[in-house]
Amino acid sequence: MTEPSGEFAYINWIRSQLPAEDGVTTIGSGDDMAEVRLPTGGRVLVGTDAILEGTHFDLRRDAPADVGWKALAVNLSDVAAMAAEPICGVGTLALPRTMAMTAAQEIFAGIKRCADAYGCRWVGGDITAWDAPLAITVTVLAWAEKPVRRNGAKVGQVVAVTGSLGGSLLGRHLTFPPRIAEARKLAAAVRLGAMMDLSDGLSSDIGHICQESGVGVVIEGAKVPVSAAAEKMAARDGRTALDHAINDGEDFELLFTCEAADAAALGKLDLGVPVTVIGRIVAAGEGRVLVDQHSHAAALMPGGYEHWKK
Amino acid sequence: MTEPSGEFAYINWIRSQLPAEDGVTTIGSGDDMAEVRLPTGGRVLVGTDAILEGTHFDLRRDAPADVGWKALAVNLSDVAAMAAEPICGVGTLALPRTMAMTAAQEIFAGIKRCADAYGCRWVGGDITAWDAPLAITVTVLAWAEKPVRRNGAKVGQVVAVTGSLGGSLLGRHLTFPPRIAEARKLAAAVRLGAMMDLSDGLSSDIGHICQESGVGVVIEGAKVPVSAAAEKMAARDGRTALDHAINDGEDFELLFTCEAADAAALGKLDLGVPVTVIGRIVAAGEGRVLVDQHSHAAALMPGGYEHWKK
Repeated sequence: MTEPSGEFAYINWIRSQLPAEDGVTTIGSGDDMAEVRLPTGGRVLVGTDAILEGTHFDLRRDAPADVGWKALAVNLSDVAAMAAEPICGVGTLALPRTMAMTAAQEIFAGIKRCADAYGCRWVGGDITAWDAPLAITVTVLAWAEKPVRRNGAKVGQVVAVTGSLGGSLLGRHLTFPPRIAEARKLAAAVRLGAMMDLSDGLSSDIGHICQESGVGVVIEGAKVPVSAAAEKMAARDGRTALDHAINDGEDFELLFTCEAADAAALGKLDLGVPVTVIGRIVAAGEGRVLVDQHSHAAALMPGGYEHWKK
Repeated sequence: MTEPSGEFAYINWIRSQLPAEDGVTTIGSGDDMAEVRLPTGGRVLVGTDAILEGTHFDLRRDAPADVGWKALAVNLSDVAAMAAEPICGVGTLALPRTMAMTAAQEIFAGIKRCADAYGCRWVGGDITAWDAPLAITVTVLAWAEKPVRRNGAKVGQVVAVTGSLGGSLLGRHLTFPPRIAEARKLAAAVRLGAMMDLSDGLSSDIGHICQESGVGVVIEGAKVPVSAAAEKMAARDGRTALDHAINDGEDFELLFTCEAADAAALGKLDLGVPVTVIGRIVAAGEGRVLVDQHSHAAALMPGGYEHWKK
C-alpha cells in the first residue's frame, strides 16, 4: 500500500469535511451528481465538471466545436450515470487572451449543439479571459424520480457495460454521445444496483462502485468489450488491447450492476448500443479481481490516470 | 461609437443564440442568475462564476483561504442581487500541478467557511490539476419567491447603493461579505425595481440595468459614497477618489432602484451597512448622465475593465 496522494487524497479529505446526507442534501459528494431538496419541495440533481486545455483536449489538434461538445457532454454523461434527464446547463469559459472570436464562437456552437441534441437548455454563464490555456466548466441540473447511485451494488449482481472500451484518445473522447436515453431504458427494463459513467477507466471506476457499495468484484477479462480503437492503439504501443480497454479513461460508457436474474433481459434490450455482462459482484472480503482467459486471477488495480501527485 | 469587441460582444453574441424565456426558462441569460422551472414544479435559480489567478487574485500575495472565500462569495453576491437565499454550491478547482496539498486544503477551507457563514451547503465538485494557473468555478443554486431582476427599473425611481465604493483592490475584493441578508431586508421593506451586485464598477453596472430596463439614469457624483480605500488609492495614483468609486470593479455591494416614495424608508432601515441614494431613473432618451458637484453633466461611460478584446 502506498500513502494516498494527489487528487484522490484531496477529494477524500474534502469529503471528510462535508456534512453527512440529511433531509436537504439527499445525495452528497461521492456520486456522479449531488441531489438536494428544494425549499419549495421537490428535488434537483446538480453536477459540475471542468475540461482543461492540455489535459482533456488539445486546441492544436481538436476542433473548437468538438471541445465545446465535450465540455457539456462530460456533464451529461454524469446525468446518464444517475439515469436522470437533464434540465439546464450553465458554464464558465476562461479564454486565452490570444483566442480569436471565431474560435470562441465555435466553442459555444459545440456546447449549444450538444445541449439541443439532449434537451438540456443552456441558460447562461460567465466569460473571462486570461494569459493561460482554455478552461471550461459546465454545471448541469437534472432530475430523476429515482436516481441510480454508486452505492447500490449487491453481492450476486452482475456487472455490465455499454459499448466497447479503450482507445478513446483516438477521437471518441471528444464527440461521444452521453448515454442518457440508454440509461433511462436500462432503469426501466432491469433492476439496477449501482451505475456510473466510465471516465477514469474501468479498473478505477469499478473500484469507486466497490468502495461506495462495500462490495468486491470479479471481472472476466475475456468478456470485456474491446473497441477497435483499443486494438489500434495496442498495435502501435505494444500494450495489449485489453490493457487499453481496462485502463484507458474517457470511455463515457455506462458501468452498472443489476440483478443476475435480469442478465438475460439485458441481451434483449434494443439500446442501439451493445450491452455486455463482464463480471459479478462478490463480498468485499473477496477483493477486486480480474480473471484472464486462462482462469488466472489477479488483483484489479486502478490503472487510471491521476493528474496531481502532491 | 466603437465596434463592440471582446467579452461583452461575445456575451451578446451568445445571448442572441439562446432561446427566449418561456415556461421552463423563467429568467434567462442577462441577469445575475438564471431561473428554471423544474419538472416536478417549483423554480430554482442557478448562477456560475469563475475566478482566475492573475485576473481575480494573486497567489503571491493573497492567502489561499481568502481566494477560496472569494470563489464562493462572488457567486453568493449574485444570489444577493436577486434578493434570494442560497441552497447549495458545487465547484471545480483546476489546480496548478506545483501547488502544495496544504494550500489546496486552505482554499477549500475558505470555500467552506464562506458556505457555512451564509447557509449554503457545499455538495461537491470536480478536482483536476494542470500546468497552468489556478482557476476556480463555483455554481450556486438559490431560491426566491420573487427574484429581483435587472429589468425592473422604472422612470422616476431612485438609484441607491449599499456600502461605499472604490479601491476594493486594497483588500476588500477578496474577503467581502455577500449582501444576502441586506438584500432580503431591502426587498421586504421597499418596492424594489431593479437590482444587481456591483462587480464591473458602478459606471458599467448601472448601464446593464439601463440596458435591461430600457431606461436612462442621472447619477449625482457628490452623493456617491466613496470608500476610504478609494481615497487611499487616489492619493497614490493621482486619479480622483470619485473616479475610483465610479469605475473600480469588485465592490460587491448592491446597486438597486426603488420607488421614490420609499427613499425615506431606506434611510431608516437598519441594515448594518449604509444605504445611499445616488441618483434617479429617467427616460432612455435622456441617456446615462453623471452630474458633478458644480451641476455639470457628462455622459456616464462604462469605465469597467474588459479582459478580452478580440
